Amino acid sequence: MTDTERPDAGARDTAPGDHANHSHTRTDACAPAASARTVAEQLAIVLASVAPLSPVRVELDAARGLVLAEDVLTVTDTPPFDNSAMDGYAVIRSDLLSASPQNPITLPVIADLAAGTAENPRLLPGQVARIMTGAPIPDGADAVVPIEDTDQGIERVAIVRAPGAAAHVRRAGEDAHAGDRVLRAGSVLWPTRVAAAASAGTSSVLVHPAPRVAVISTGSELVTPGSPTRRGQIPDSNSFLLSAAVAEAGGIAVRIGAVPDDDDVLRALLAELAGSVDVIVLSGGVSVGAYDVVKAVLKPLGTVDFGPVKMQPGKPQGFGRWPATEQAAGPLIFALPGNPVSAYVSFEVFVRPALQRLLGRPILHRRTVTATVVDGWRSPPGRAQYMPVIVTNRTDGTENGTRTEARPASRGGSGSHLVAGLAQASGLAIVPEDATHIRGGDVITVMLTS
Amino acid sequence: MTDTERPDAGARDTAPGDHANHSHTRTDACAPAASARTVAEQLAIVLASVAPLSPVRVELDAARGLVLAEDVLTVTDTPPFDNSAMDGYAVIRSDLLSASPQNPITLPVIADLAAGTAENPRLLPGQVARIMTGAPIPDGADAVVPIEDTDQGIERVAIVRAPGAAAHVRRAGEDAHAGDRVLRAGSVLWPTRVAAAASAGTSSVLVHPAPRVAVISTGSELVTPGSPTRRGQIPDSNSFLLSAAVAEAGGIAVRIGAVPDDDDVLRALLAELAGSVDVIVLSGGVSVGAYDVVKAVLKPLGTVDFGPVKMQPGKPQGFGRWPATEQAAGPLIFALPGNPVSAYVSFEVFVRPALQRLLGRPILHRRTVTATVVDGWRSPPGRAQYMPVIVTNRTDGTENGTRTEARPASRGGSGSHLVAGLAQASGLAIVPEDATHIRGGDVITVMLTS
Repeated sequence: MTDTERPDAGARDTAPGDHANHSHTRTDACAPAASARTVAEQLAIVLASVAPLSPVRVELDAARGLVLAEDVLTVTDTPPFDNSAMDGYAVIRSDLLSASPQNPITLPVIADLAAGTAENPRLLPGQVARIMTGAPIPDGADAVVPIEDTDQGIERVAIVRAPGAAAHVRRAGEDAHAGDRVLRAGSVLWPTRVAAAASAGTSSVLVHPAPRVAVISTGSELVTPGSPTRRGQIPDSNSFLLSAAVAEAGGIAVRIGAVPDDDDVLRALLAELAGSVDVIVLSGGVSVGAYDVVKAVLKPLGTVDFGPVKMQPGKPQGFGRWPATEQAAGPLIFALPGNPVSAYVSFEVFVRPALQRLLGRPILHRRTVTATVVDGWRSPPGRAQYMPVIVTNRTDGTENGTRTEARPASRGGSGSHLVAGLAQASGLAIVPEDATHIRGGDVITVMLTS
Repeated sequence: MTDTERPDAGARDTAPGDHANHSHTRTDACAPAASARTVAEQLAIVLASVAPLSPVRVELDAARGLVLAEDVLTVTDTPPFDNSAMDGYAVIRSDLLSASPQNPITLPVIADLAAGTAENPRLLPGQVARIMTGAPIPDGADAVVPIEDTDQGIERVAIVRAPGAAAHVRRAGEDAHAGDRVLRAGSVLWPTRVAAAASAGTSSVLVHPAPRVAVISTGSELVTPGSPTRRGQIPDSNSFLLSAAVAEAGGIAVRIGAVPDDDDVLRALLAELAGSVDVIVLSGGVSVGAYDVVKAVLKPLGTVDFGPVKMQPGKPQGFGRWPATEQAAGPLIFALPGNPVSAYVSFEVFVRPALQRLLGRPILHRRTVTATVVDGWRSPPGRAQYMPVIVTNRTDGTENGTRTEARPASRGGSGSHLVAGLAQASGLAIVPEDATHIRGGDVITVMLTS
């Protein structure tokens, strides 16, 4: 089921006891269970299970944003032949040493060399060839006179300025020699790097592929948005939230949508998906309810851990793998809480860094800034809190100009206007475990999410 | 043809005279032509021609990153019915005021309400119903006792704690009332905003669509990367560079690749594309050469301007529109220089902001930082210079911890290792028009590009 509690309603975020054993222990919402892990410990467990996906070769058109799994070497010298850096005339410099506006030197034009030409007319002393930018320098020529220093003649040309030595000649291999490394394994393929691979004469590159990520919401109350709802039903929003977040993080989202609280249905779906995706992200069904379908299906596998994490929201967290087959390891499984804020925070804190590692990216984490708190709030002791905040830059009257401010995205407490408030947040303020009151004027670390 | 000059080879970056009129005027590379515009003037001309694309309705799955062209209102109250925020028992609070661990109160359980149920059994005094998170509160009940405060009984349940008034009941409309605005027109659809629209009961949204952008390299010397090259030929890299940059900016790139320096071929291609794309980005063929095909085809239209811009690189810039038909305005046309660094800088400075405006995004420009220069360089007077730089953060020993540093991405001058150097740059340092020497220790503004 979807855990639709308020993210700050700590009592719901209790350590998930095993419902089947009818434990009657009351877990204080504000004190983590002895076995609870810190966020850092949980993240270390997640990242220790994740390595860049096995490299595949892709065409350059599909390579943007992916990470190289090989060095890219130039196929030929770059440029591959001496060529003109200007539109003008290829010349023998010694013919023109005395040229000046007062004393133009007029010479016969024996060829017209456009870019792309394969022609290579040999210049004899006293001859020139018209040449366009990028065209190969003909044998015998040793400099280029720019068009502006001539009368632009077609059959004969008057030249009014002596060229410098090797003027406007781009030498073969000037940018790179054949076999030079132009890109390193591990580089993220920004547009300029895609271009560098193209320029090196490469049509495809070996990269870590984007992970395919199935996204499933669980809960018999969930219907597709826009469908009519009867009493008891609400629209599924988590599969949209998490699919969009997967895509933004560089993954390929396979949005399955909502499935009912039915163990057999979920088990069959996961088994079917296991062969075709790298990651499965579930939300809902991980708490203490009678119909916590995700726990019911995954716990017996023995490969998914449901240890609580000392964070708020997001305390119940399932992480592991679908069982391996003889052919392949099973996909990673993240079982997130069903509350949208809890699911989103859990995604940002655990799933997104894992996706970055699957992609082979060197930077796993979002950028953080320090910000001054505007309106304070409370935080549970013993748990790191992630508070959705609106981050603004405000002129502060000092010479430095601006200060960065953070205020909770939901007015009137983080419980009300929950999804609408989250939608305005541009960051998550990170409250350390030991803090209980965040006050206006406090300086806090904020993970920027947009 | 591709303008393959060095980006710092100022002499090539002369004001593009009309070759056909055989102007013999020598234009000093370091002094802009009288008619040259500043970067700000050129950008103002570009942006004045660009408005957000006409809205279209898209499914939520296709909406991420696009900008809303309508307010999104909730279809029903959110939540649409009173529901439980906890797994536990729906109760009549007045039955339980004296409950305590020492004095449990045991009551009959008349129903088991799962999330998604449409059941609504009316509680009479002394009765309770088992209820899961998200399930509707039955008529008569006015509070929820969490499972932890009970013996989890199925037919009868012992309750050890009195609930507070309306405890753990989420009220219908608590987050939003039907008709409330949850998202504003003009909002960028981040993942959490896609989720807010879903949660509001919306399956599709009215957005400004992503612009379709055709990308064409011109130059008879260009071949597809990976194809064998003969003397005179080089791989096309600009169409890969600019297509990837378009995609990164949020556009839909239609990479046409390289076309030869043939007026008829280019004219026919542009005419064919005009009906199916919003923007055409060309590179090469905008300078003073005899085969400057882009200028030759576009200038006679009268709708594309080739005014020089006081910048380096990127001085020759074509901007305008393909002629309108009775049905529609023609696509925007950007004719960029062919040198890869010039093309990239021109894209970042003019094309990318235009694409952001077509998308309806509120922020048109890249983030800038101030950085301390490590290795200096020279800049032409009278022209704003955009120098590809590597930006790093370095501990500086002060309390603030780090300082941001910028060094030219190409060692040994910006001409050598041109494409490979550009591929390492993470920003463009912006040198003002009047500066001629940038020295180590200078503080400079850098546009961050990755």
